[in-house]
Amino acid sequence: MNVILLSGGGGKRLWPLSNDIRSKQFVRLFNDKNGNYESMVQRAYRQIISVDKNAQIVIATGKPQVELIKNQLGSKVSVCVEPCRKDTFPAIALAAAYLKDKKGVSEEDSVVVCPVDPYVDETYYQAVKRLETIVKEETAKLTLLGIEPTYPSEKYGYIIPTCKEEISLVKAFKEKPDRKKAEQYIEQGALWNAGIFAFKLGYILDKAHGMVEFTDYSDLYLKYGTLTKISFDYAVAEKESSIQVMRYFGEWKDIGTWDMVTDVMEECTKGIVALDDTCQNINVVNELNIPVICMGCKNMVVAISNNGILISDKERSSYIKPYVEKINSDNSFDKDSTGKYEVIDIFPEAMVQKVIIKKGKKIKFHGREFINEIWNIVAGTGKAIVDGDEKKIKTGDVVKIGVGCKCTIIAYTDLTLIEIQVVPNTSEEDKELDILNKAEINC
Amino acid sequence: MNVILLSGGGGKRLWPLSNDIRSKQFVRLFNDKNGNYESMVQRAYRQIISVDKNAQIVIATGKPQVELIKNQLGSKVSVCVEPCRKDTFPAIALAAAYLKDKKGVSEEDSVVVCPVDPYVDETYYQAVKRLETIVKEETAKLTLLGIEPTYPSEKYGYIIPTCKEEISLVKAFKEKPDRKKAEQYIEQGALWNAGIFAFKLGYILDKAHGMVEFTDYSDLYLKYGTLTKISFDYAVAEKESSIQVMRYFGEWKDIGTWDMVTDVMEECTKGIVALDDTCQNINVVNELNIPVICMGCKNMVVAISNNGILISDKERSSYIKPYVEKINSDNSFDKDSTGKYEVIDIFPEAMVQKVIIKKGKKIKFHGREFINEIWNIVAGTGKAIVDGDEKKIKTGDVVKIGVGCKCTIIAYTDLTLIEIQVVPNTSEEDKELDILNKAEINC
Repeated sequence: MNVILLSGGGGKRLWPLSNDIRSKQFVRLFNDKNGNYESMVQRAYRQIISVDKNAQIVIATGKPQVELIKNQLGSKVSVCVEPCRKDTFPAIALAAAYLKDKKGVSEEDSVVVCPVDPYVDETYYQAVKRLETIVKEETAKLTLLGIEPTYPSEKYGYIIPTCKEEISLVKAFKEKPDRKKAEQYIEQGALWNAGIFAFKLGYILDKAHGMVEFTDYSDLYLKYGTLTKISFDYAVAEKESSIQVMRYFGEWKDIGTWDMVTDVMEECTKGIVALDDTCQNINVVNELNIPVICMGCKNMVVAISNNGILISDKERSSYIKPYVEKINSDNSFDKDSTGKYEVIDIFPEAMVQKVIIKKGKKIKFHGREFINEIWNIVAGTGKAIVDGDEKKIKTGDVVKIGVGCKCTIIAYTDLTLIEIQVVPNTSEEDKELDILNKAEINC
Repeated sequence: MNVILLSGGGGKRLWPLSNDIRSKQFVRLFNDKNGNYESMVQRAYRQIISVDKNAQIVIATGKPQVELIKNQLGSKVSVCVEPCRKDTFPAIALAAAYLKDKKGVSEEDSVVVCPVDPYVDETYYQAVKRLETIVKEETAKLTLLGIEPTYPSEKYGYIIPTCKEEISLVKAFKEKPDRKKAEQYIEQGALWNAGIFAFKLGYILDKAHGMVEFTDYSDLYLKYGTLTKISFDYAVAEKESSIQVMRYFGEWKDIGTWDMVTDVMEECTKGIVALDDTCQNINVVNELNIPVICMGCKNMVVAISNNGILISDKERSSYIKPYVEKINSDNSFDKDSTGKYEVIDIFPEAMVQKVIIKKGKKIKFHGREFINEIWNIVAGTGKAIVDGDEKKIKTGDVVKIGVGCKCTIIAYTDLTLIEIQVVPNTSEEDKELDILNKAEINC
């Protein structure tokens, strides 16, 4: 089968493991069948292949995610990169053109569009594969998968079918309702809209040509920036009269929040974590190389990455979004200082310091008579001036300052550097050190 | 007055902020009067000076702490360095010889020995200053400060005085008792032993000469390794018949455990921390440069440093020791003891690690697919091989390893390097990126 796997969005709700760069679908939290951890995108990919080993999968995604996808799925995976975010209809149209022009898929072939993020088992992708066959029967132009609701959720859109058969025409779509309306919908046999769409490739290409004139994939790619943002539901599904839905009864979980993630984690800790025996109902995900000790923690989720640390009551964790937004906008400095420094480590011939310079500030390092300095930029951007030579600096850059050089640094953003001060070999220490070294022999 | 400030020991109970190198007395947790954070040693030093601006203070400590003390108190501070740990009597004897020979203190002058770690206010050091005067009155050879107990603690030693006067001769010393015995002692007017001793300098020098023959400070320093480990209580105080105690009624807190530390913290958070409004009775100390969000946390202490992360119920936090010992024994260092590494700091796009490679050992760093590395050599010598190129390395050298390079390092001596791992910001992507960049103009 041909699958367009939609891997979109940023996402703050699984902070600090997800962020604007690493969306939730890349967080490795789930056990695969071999005892390794896999991400949502790895899990979906593996499950599709296990249902159909010849599946042609193209991942529709944005530029920031390409590296991560290739990192997780291998460099051979087909990725259709949106040049900018334009919602699901343009993304699906571009991926359809990609399938035709890059992969040689026929316009008569079935294509199924799947979001990457529900937590499901393989029976779900068996149902997806059945959609392929159903499309070929041409009983409707567009076929959806509807999830049998387990409770009157206010979080999902609903599909109202015309009857309660397994496959039924669609009467109407409903936006996320309040609880009472959700109950009414369910009484009518309504299903959750899983965001799965199946059609012949030619169908969606026709719709795409209705949106913009283009010759092929590359042409559509170039014109992508001119397209209007619009969802597939709104642009296509809700306007289509020849549309049917297939019921799906199996497990389907939307794991958009931490309490849902912990619900499906098979082991309660990941990474270097020690729990004392008074901890209860706690999940800890530690991505750092430093140990975590939890004592007496109850009903909690802890998530640790180099973006930050979340320590939360499980129920509260779904309200994280405004706090993440606040942290991203906050700046933790005193108003009037240039910055600060801190000694990190000391060796006989070298000292390691962390230096933070505030955005817009300039620090005058006087030339040092006896010391070499090395600046490792670890965060931010700015400009270094060493003996009159100007150089723009960013994370990963190294600036060496020889003995006697005059050097300045100007921070364009808040700038952090690890400074190594090196004292050339012979040191003028007080005589006591000699005594001290002798005395050590006796210890 | 002349003060010997005892700054000893390691300490696991304030893990991860304290460890074998940075003892609890160097953790900056307390507000000074100017809104800055200070450590126990800074606080004690400041309080002594504010009571007696001419106080002659010598800090008796071990070699590993010297740099930290000078970093926190300035390079001019008097430090008497024990060449190796020998418990309090040898340490006090050495500091006494230091006062006489290095500072010219007369044998007739008073000296007060103070441990650095109780949390007190200035009235405590006013009492310490009174001891100086009391010593000069020569009513006893040795004068102690006894803390009026506030509850029958099992954690402290007790001093039983002969009467309930403010100043009284000492009848007996008692080891840490059980609760019932503690109650009995308190009924007899017993006091907590604060570890404060006051005497004339000549008194302690006589005792020192009774322990070992030596001519002066330098000679005692050289012989230090031969001395027997013994506490001042056992070697001197408990054998002295001419001994008295002064009662102290003010605040005195032993802040050896996290629940006691949080008790005296003036602000409930330190570092980049956001608490939601359902948090109650929580203290968070974050020494890393990444934000922490706490939601719905109740009665908890959170402490975060580059050594690790503690998340604990406040009451449970005093039971941390075995968990820290376990972590230290099965930590993430290489099993074959080629060396070890430690995460020093973490930034969104970079991580700083300290890597130690033992003399003669070789480490195989596999090429990293997505990470640039920069090695700053800060101690030792060795050889780096990057993609086949060999280069001798020494302190002050910088080795850059690009994405995908194969690199090895061989240590000629014990070798320490500061490794900066950088996640490249944007990468050289397949041809599509060119199109993509054009398309972006339209976005």
